[in-house]
Amino acid sequence: MNALTEDIDIVSPTVDKLLYGNPDTEVKGVVTAFSASQFVLGQAVALGANLIITHEGVFFSHQDERDWLKEDPVYQEKIRLIEQSGMAIFRFHDYVHRYKPDGIMTGMLRELGWQNYVSVHNPAATILNIPVMTLAEIADYLKKALQISYVRVSGDQFMPCTRVGILVGYRGSGRQAIPLFQQEEVDLIIAGEGPEWETPEYVKDAVQQGRSKALIMLGHAESEAPGMKYVAERLSEQFPGLPVSFVRDKAAFYIV
Amino acid sequence: MNALTEDIDIVSPTVDKLLYGNPDTEVKGVVTAFSASQFVLGQAVALGANLIITHEGVFFSHQDERDWLKEDPVYQEKIRLIEQSGMAIFRFHDYVHRYKPDGIMTGMLRELGWQNYVSVHNPAATILNIPVMTLAEIADYLKKALQISYVRVSGDQFMPCTRVGILVGYRGSGRQAIPLFQQEEVDLIIAGEGPEWETPEYVKDAVQQGRSKALIMLGHAESEAPGMKYVAERLSEQFPGLPVSFVRDKAAFYIV
Repeated sequence: MNALTEDIDIVSPTVDKLLYGNPDTEVKGVVTAFSASQFVLGQAVALGANLIITHEGVFFSHQDERDWLKEDPVYQEKIRLIEQSGMAIFRFHDYVHRYKPDGIMTGMLRELGWQNYVSVHNPAATILNIPVMTLAEIADYLKKALQISYVRVSGDQFMPCTRVGILVGYRGSGRQAIPLFQQEEVDLIIAGEGPEWETPEYVKDAVQQGRSKALIMLGHAESEAPGMKYVAERLSEQFPGLPVSFVRDKAAFYIV
Repeated sequence: MNALTEDIDIVSPTVDKLLYGNPDTEVKGVVTAFSASQFVLGQAVALGANLIITHEGVFFSHQDERDWLKEDPVYQEKIRLIEQSGMAIFRFHDYVHRYKPDGIMTGMLRELGWQNYVSVHNPAATILNIPVMTLAEIADYLKKALQISYVRVSGDQFMPCTRVGILVGYRGSGRQAIPLFQQEEVDLIIAGEGPEWETPEYVKDAVQQGRSKALIMLGHAESEAPGMKYVAERLSEQFPGLPVSFVRDKAAFYIV
């Protein structure tokens, strides 16, 4: 854990901590993932790992509140697997977002092969100048590069895009995304998740006014999983003898 | 406006108010909509209405904050159309949710033809016992009844569902939705919008544990537009001479 957080200014208060396990236990194998889901837990056990490094919480809550879940059978079965397997779980959220640039953003740019197109890294958003593609081409490219089955798109599919703002996780809010259209002159925002009555309503209005603006929502997990893949790659380099795997979870939704 | 809020306990503080226009102006025609978007404004002008009753805010913000938007060209063009058309805009959010049962929920149940299947109205959720359908059949039924092009689904498409919880708007959070699976023994939750790391992660874990649980996310606008259609129907009955139209907005997203 210290290797993950060294050189990063202390974040306080933070949700990052060892949620399960003993800090003195010898690590035999590591799995990184967007969330320590039931599926990821099973994969970690199968891989012989005894530490999961998870970006989001284990129990459906950012602040790890769980009193309200004590009688829930899904919660109880998951706790049982964690305890029986002896799996250690480290929440790794605030620190990786404080990497410079943000480690989750770095993972996204690596997965897209867009590292060389960065114009500027702002704290919440990275602005890129990419080779011109239409909105439809970018949507297809994102699906292939990120191995996801759908994206939600707003804007004209034939619109050429070259200046792009990316916001991972729950940074698609109006206050964070909307100003980029004017201040950074982006054509397109690619975001993870955000309130639907904010940025999507703005882009719908802009398009209705005849402006060439567009929005692609990847999904929260879809936008942050590449960052946790990058964390696995870094750990593999730092600890060459240690088996480290990134586990890609099943998608939360399919489209009907 | 008084006809909309009479018999409802005063809600304080509230976002509900006349955002534009003069309370003494004679109303010539009314449009109701999920949001007073650029498209809805244009439709209202074309219909000869001079009052829009909108559920969500006009400027991409629940609390109607707009100082940060003053220099934004999309904001400026929208303001110009409102001022030039003389359109009055009444925000109608908190009061309609306080109807007993919630007016937005009533609209949804009417649109689905499910009024007779209600088991219990809780403040945030309505629980129904519907004739058994598979999850895939319900997803198709929702798309047809609500006239929407896609829904996001989690769970086995062949799973039979009969006990269903519905939560409109941004009530799909973990704290509001998850307890219904155990306390109300629902098979399926149909929600508008909610944080993706909460209820969707829970349902993914439940399915991974082999449980018959499912979730359908309609989208925020898609889950509340029927309620504003119902508001239009009520107003038409209360003011028989007054032209009142519900305007269905364009969808915020399409799927690629």
